[in-house]
Amino acid sequence: MKINGQPYRTIWLAQDGFRVCVIDQTRLPFRFETVTLGSVEQAATAITTMIVRGAPLIGATAAYGVALAMRADASDAALEAALALLGATRPTAVNLHWALARMRMALAGIPAPERAAAAYAEAAAICDEDVALCRSIGEHGLPLIREIAARKPAGAPVNILTHCNAGWLATVDWGTALAPIYLAHDSGIPVHVWVDETRPRNQGAALTAYELGGHGVPHTVIADNAGGHLMQHGQVDMVIVGTDRTTATGDVANKIGTYLKALAAHDNGVPFYVALPSPTIDWSLSDGVREIPIEERSAREVTHLSGLAENGEVALIRVVAPGSEAANPAFDVTPARLVTGLITERGVASASREGLARLFPDLARAVAA
Amino acid sequence: MKINGQPYRTIWLAQDGFRVCVIDQTRLPFRFETVTLGSVEQAATAITTMIVRGAPLIGATAAYGVALAMRADASDAALEAALALLGATRPTAVNLHWALARMRMALAGIPAPERAAAAYAEAAAICDEDVALCRSIGEHGLPLIREIAARKPAGAPVNILTHCNAGWLATVDWGTALAPIYLAHDSGIPVHVWVDETRPRNQGAALTAYELGGHGVPHTVIADNAGGHLMQHGQVDMVIVGTDRTTATGDVANKIGTYLKALAAHDNGVPFYVALPSPTIDWSLSDGVREIPIEERSAREVTHLSGLAENGEVALIRVVAPGSEAANPAFDVTPARLVTGLITERGVASASREGLARLFPDLARAVAA
Repeated sequence: MKINGQPYRTIWLAQDGFRVCVIDQTRLPFRFETVTLGSVEQAATAITTMIVRGAPLIGATAAYGVALAMRADASDAALEAALALLGATRPTAVNLHWALARMRMALAGIPAPERAAAAYAEAAAICDEDVALCRSIGEHGLPLIREIAARKPAGAPVNILTHCNAGWLATVDWGTALAPIYLAHDSGIPVHVWVDETRPRNQGAALTAYELGGHGVPHTVIADNAGGHLMQHGQVDMVIVGTDRTTATGDVANKIGTYLKALAAHDNGVPFYVALPSPTIDWSLSDGVREIPIEERSAREVTHLSGLAENGEVALIRVVAPGSEAANPAFDVTPARLVTGLITERGVASASREGLARLFPDLARAVAA
Repeated sequence: MKINGQPYRTIWLAQDGFRVCVIDQTRLPFRFETVTLGSVEQAATAITTMIVRGAPLIGATAAYGVALAMRADASDAALEAALALLGATRPTAVNLHWALARMRMALAGIPAPERAAAAYAEAAAICDEDVALCRSIGEHGLPLIREIAARKPAGAPVNILTHCNAGWLATVDWGTALAPIYLAHDSGIPVHVWVDETRPRNQGAALTAYELGGHGVPHTVIADNAGGHLMQHGQVDMVIVGTDRTTATGDVANKIGTYLKALAAHDNGVPFYVALPSPTIDWSLSDGVREIPIEERSAREVTHLSGLAENGEVALIRVVAPGSEAANPAFDVTPARLVTGLITERGVASASREGLARLFPDLARAVAA
């Protein structure tokens, strides 16, 4: 998608052909800066510090991290060390492990001298496939928006609430939850997006608002607390969010607070959709609340907050009373019973084992076997 | 309650005997400063700008605002002007109108020369009664906490989640939702409070954490998004919140986001209590979602945020992407069906017309008549 009129992906090869460039998402929306990753350690740090974030982009960055490792040392030991280092960066997103497993499969049987080239090729393929998956998610989600628009007075916008950032900045391009919205906007359907701020890291206020603004999509930022009230008053036509891990039964782990919006949508009869590429599905899990590990991040993300100060500098301030501690679970799990449908690259599935297996019989069967 | 070991109320007469002192709650928790109000206009501004906030304290400040007006000009016209000015400051809290109606009743039949003295006496009575009401709320809520403690292993804390600030800073003293918690802590029951940050104005992170810390009550600040996840994992034993207006049927208007926590409590079988003094009940209303006016506050409260910068100064930063707009509904309504009980100064009522009428037959009948 575009920033200041120039098309970007979130990850690309540097001009030297081996280093990897990413947008520093900790600096957005007030600074647009790119970071060049030259080693597997730098790739791992970029994931841990959330220079890159979003389940699909984490997977893509990890894949290139393996490629960077292979360029430095293509031995079996180096491959295992790279997979272990990258696999330990974030606990919740399943794409990370999916991407690393795929890199292992692609490289394990290849002689060391050819591994670096094969790794770069596989990482590039993962990126290109992610773009295609997200575009397909957009195409399958578009009719859902079109149907709601058709039921509204001509010209009245479809009001869509989203939480966190599941836009193109969370993927390689297009995004997951925002892909249908971009396609709807581009095809002339009037849309308006309620953007949850998404405390504590403010990915909604900072990233989703930034990318929607850059693409010209009408939107309004709201506190995470406001969505239920808006739904009670008919101001939300549908919810679309992304996910970091979805069970084979349709339970959805996503940014902390998603569950609360799903409850409110259910209480008010508002359709609640989750957009996901199939690598986000963990076919081995059946009970999301019990089985999906939830990352506990630093309390400092709750107690402190950064933004643009009046002097034009990005400043960090403390917002919690001095002496008080904080807790910071980063994700929650929305049970499948609260999910209207899962928008995937193959179509919209009901949030159930049957619904997912019908769209992905190959993947569901591979795990069952 | 105490600040740095010194007992305070939130509002008191200055040494000159006519001006009114309040704690500037926009400066907490990083600065403790008091503001002296010398006119009805200053009292109105203190309410509008949220130097004072919390439904009971707003009512008390408005009462003293009338007294300040009467000291300057005790004519009928001045009385009506003061009531109109103060009545327009905040739209959601019903205590404001209750306090102003009471001041009108106390002053209407009194000759102008005696009105100022009568107004100060009535305002002082409103304050003293609020302290007594809050203390009674605490005593009626205490057994609810004690019962939960008795079912837990010895020494295990009762985990109580609260939203916004319904502590002593929101009232004249003691608080509403926090009054039972202070009494439990003081009587040796181990309690731990999950403090919702409460965006956009952060009254939880700033005020509730500040006053719990000052009193030595164990607590942990969390993002507003986190409560549902904690309830799913058995880490919340009960919820207690305050309210700005409660209908005769038990629907509860409170700080935006309260409804989401009530949904999560209901979904997880966690008791959800609302603490309120009876002046918060609007006996004329029966459908909170439709009938309670919800204040829409400045978008700037969402886009900008203040806190303590690294240089020790209180700084304001922008957290929303440049160019993006924001919406800021300040309250939402939790339907009575999600409320386990209403903790009042006369006992715990079910959240229903019957439950409230049983405890307050005098008040319920007065309106029906």
